[in-house]
Amino acid sequence: MDYALWIQAQAQAQAQAQAQTALQAGWSRQRLLHEALRDAIRNGQLPPGSRLLASRALAAELGWARNTVIYAYEQLASEGWVSAGRRGTVVLARPQAAVTRVTAAVMSKSDSPATLSPPTSAPLCLSQRTASLACLPLAADLAAGFAPGVPALDAFPLALWRRLMARAWRASSGPQLNYGPPAGERALRQAIAAHLRASRALRCSAEQVFITDGTQTSLDLCARAFADAGDKVWIESPGYGGALTAFRGAQLRPVGIRVDAQGMSPRPQDWRVHRPKLIYVTPSHQYPSGAVMGLERRLALIAQARQCGALIIEDDYDSEFRYEGPPLAALQGLGPDLSSETIHNADLQWQDGQAISDSPVVYLGTFSKTLFPGLRIAFMVVPAPLVKPLHQLLARSVPRGRAAEQLALAEFLSEGHFGLHLRRMRRLYRERRDVLMAALQSELGDIAEVQGASAGMHLALRFRPEWGLDDQAISARALREGIVAPALSQHLIGRRGGDVSGLMLGYAQVPTAQIKPLVRRLAALVRGA
Amino acid sequence: MDYALWIQAQAQAQAQAQAQTALQAGWSRQRLLHEALRDAIRNGQLPPGSRLLASRALAAELGWARNTVIYAYEQLASEGWVSAGRRGTVVLARPQAAVTRVTAAVMSKSDSPATLSPPTSAPLCLSQRTASLACLPLAADLAAGFAPGVPALDAFPLALWRRLMARAWRASSGPQLNYGPPAGERALRQAIAAHLRASRALRCSAEQVFITDGTQTSLDLCARAFADAGDKVWIESPGYGGALTAFRGAQLRPVGIRVDAQGMSPRPQDWRVHRPKLIYVTPSHQYPSGAVMGLERRLALIAQARQCGALIIEDDYDSEFRYEGPPLAALQGLGPDLSSETIHNADLQWQDGQAISDSPVVYLGTFSKTLFPGLRIAFMVVPAPLVKPLHQLLARSVPRGRAAEQLALAEFLSEGHFGLHLRRMRRLYRERRDVLMAALQSELGDIAEVQGASAGMHLALRFRPEWGLDDQAISARALREGIVAPALSQHLIGRRGGDVSGLMLGYAQVPTAQIKPLVRRLAALVRGA
Repeated sequence: MDYALWIQAQAQAQAQAQAQTALQAGWSRQRLLHEALRDAIRNGQLPPGSRLLASRALAAELGWARNTVIYAYEQLASEGWVSAGRRGTVVLARPQAAVTRVTAAVMSKSDSPATLSPPTSAPLCLSQRTASLACLPLAADLAAGFAPGVPALDAFPLALWRRLMARAWRASSGPQLNYGPPAGERALRQAIAAHLRASRALRCSAEQVFITDGTQTSLDLCARAFADAGDKVWIESPGYGGALTAFRGAQLRPVGIRVDAQGMSPRPQDWRVHRPKLIYVTPSHQYPSGAVMGLERRLALIAQARQCGALIIEDDYDSEFRYEGPPLAALQGLGPDLSSETIHNADLQWQDGQAISDSPVVYLGTFSKTLFPGLRIAFMVVPAPLVKPLHQLLARSVPRGRAAEQLALAEFLSEGHFGLHLRRMRRLYRERRDVLMAALQSELGDIAEVQGASAGMHLALRFRPEWGLDDQAISARALREGIVAPALSQHLIGRRGGDVSGLMLGYAQVPTAQIKPLVRRLAALVRGA
Repeated sequence: MDYALWIQAQAQAQAQAQAQTALQAGWSRQRLLHEALRDAIRNGQLPPGSRLLASRALAAELGWARNTVIYAYEQLASEGWVSAGRRGTVVLARPQAAVTRVTAAVMSKSDSPATLSPPTSAPLCLSQRTASLACLPLAADLAAGFAPGVPALDAFPLALWRRLMARAWRASSGPQLNYGPPAGERALRQAIAAHLRASRALRCSAEQVFITDGTQTSLDLCARAFADAGDKVWIESPGYGGALTAFRGAQLRPVGIRVDAQGMSPRPQDWRVHRPKLIYVTPSHQYPSGAVMGLERRLALIAQARQCGALIIEDDYDSEFRYEGPPLAALQGLGPDLSSETIHNADLQWQDGQAISDSPVVYLGTFSKTLFPGLRIAFMVVPAPLVKPLHQLLARSVPRGRAAEQLALAEFLSEGHFGLHLRRMRRLYRERRDVLMAALQSELGDIAEVQGASAGMHLALRFRPEWGLDDQAISARALREGIVAPALSQHLIGRRGGDVSGLMLGYAQVPTAQIKPLVRRLAALVRGA
């Protein structure tokens, strides 16, 4: 506990030295503590493995409220500096970047200014913001075991796709080889808007649809275009690592918000203490728990976000696959109507009678789950007032192209192939889901419980708490035996979400006949733990 | 001059209030002044159009060195807050984001915490970092007039490309539809490494090659992976707006470095005052001036970058087209050899006798200029010590795919089509360049001088200073008449680069027969100014 004492002294000294500064700058004590500790970790004064003083003890020592300390620790955890677990709050190892030594200068120094300060011997390494990403789980082999997020690739109508691609390339000449329109090809945007209005209850026009190269690109763009460094962004905990990556890359401050059976469930004080600029949610099928957000909570989230000026990012990644109960309308479609005047000011082409939602929501969708991941085409639907500024931004900063792929996809949608393929996959995935649930019940029913299986391409297998199983150890062991099954607790953001333990099982790409044998092998592993 | 007086008071008051803070935090006076002015602009206290006090006057008033004030003003200019011109330093207009009012809450507030602070009425708008991008020139219609950076699309062997694409799609099955390897397809990386070693004197292995979706993506990635918010990045002035966009998006601090006849020419004090983390250069054919960096300066740049721990980003966007003189080796290939031990530690496959350069250089290339922009395939060659960390980062954060396109491109390269196409285009572009130069000489020889025409796809038409022509007015007038010809002074970064005046004329995509008539129309416009 040497380091704990050291920290305490350090935090106190820094707090005193910075008190004047902090008051002037309007810093909270929480921020003060957070920055002091982060600096100490960054400098190496708090090396990896050292344990922070328990929040209660540090709060008593400083004479501050315990929540202040807890929030600062949570912030550090959500940024990847520390991990919080049963051992307490422990400083994480930073990835050891490969190092190249700056050796004696070998080149002509004729231009070298005499006053240059001495060489820093700075090694070539990643930036701090990206180095901290290395503590995220590595995308494992995405074709083995229960890898989530991968569709049944062998069931994709590849021959049809080849024909559409060939047709699109035949139709292309010089102009289609050039840079394309900043928001993507018009035909594709129209087809997507029509699909979303009909099947996801979005209320939008084609102008609100922006084509991107994948959801990760959409998230990167949202993080930079709609928030500045230091702004807070809420992420469900457990939640999606790719979103965390995008937000950290843009130097936002991620705050993990606990997930319950209805998805993200912020506490009243979260709105006060962690006022968000962006709120990232997966309401149709929470990633990874599979929870579905009910209508009342959807409405409350929109109202509260609106009240505090936050923008909701609704990631509807696998909502097309729903097996039980009626589909819930997307958050995007739940707002009141925009006035025709606002629509006119936003320069949208507007047909009489076409409603456009006033929700503060950016809706994200992708063809990685419905068609295939290698396609690299996804989309965002942005609020009407953001269409013009975002379009102008993209025209300056994001060159687009790939006309042939976009036109082939537009045809795939508008000729009805998409609807047909979705219906087929829904049938196939439901069959695989049912086989998986039956196998899990018979092999592991006493130890674990299935959750979040009403929709999507994966379910959550929650270990019953009385068994005290370590899901990360089980997941690692399974991976060594070639079974991909990510641990739920690996998806915790910061300290929130508490005692989640279980596995995330993707079933869409597992051949039906292999599901039972795989579950048997997995069950043996779990029982061996 | 009301505002100037106000600023002075403001800067002084802030400087005094923050003096203690600044000393503690190790801030320089330059940074203090910069932040105070930026805050005032951001708050609207200094509205658009207001003129800052002349640097000499403000320095005298504050009792500070004049350079301190000049550097602070330059910093503001390079960030897009002010523009520096003959009228002095003037606050720029921020783009007026469309505004949606937060009206009375219409939704259930059952969950709404009683203690929520009052609504901010925050309008939906772009982040500050991207809003400032709107002052960049808009990518105009890229198929008209002398639009730079667009190849001769009608000369691309489209029928051959269709065949290669069809073949690649026929060879694809389920696995190729999945997420791809983080650095791109191996066959393509090998073909690119072989091409670069043979034609650009790079010394690299295929493992150092990373495929991206375009140079803008490469730049975004470099900015985030190799620098943190607040780090300084050097850009040539005049220079490439796309790079400025990427660096601002990552909240780096761009510093414009003056360009002379040999490209980027930093002054000795720049290394001291504006110590860079990244240095962005276009040494083969400076964008937009066309200058070629000589060998001695290349060596000095590498030595100095190494000495201060900076990473050079070498954008070799159109170096394949060289019409006069021997090609200069890329910066990447100019370093000493890496030891085999370092190569081994970096986990590179290394064949005996294959040299790998130790330059602190990330080399960027693209197929947008050599094939066509809509392809969206570019690449980066990174230093050996960065291969492993970057690979791990990408495996976690940048999903890849598009196997068919990559494999078709690999075949295009390895079967010799690429070399043949380059030779054809070199011949065609040289012919167009010669016609353009002759026409410019006969129509505008007395007013302007051609520079930077020895390589690439554009040249710089510099107006002779004695005519005092306003290149931006001429460029805007030309655009209205359908002739794209960007003004050189539009590319100035901050205050540096001084009295550049002229036009950037891309000739690669202009049909040879149209060049002379276009020059005549342009000459009439210039003479009318």
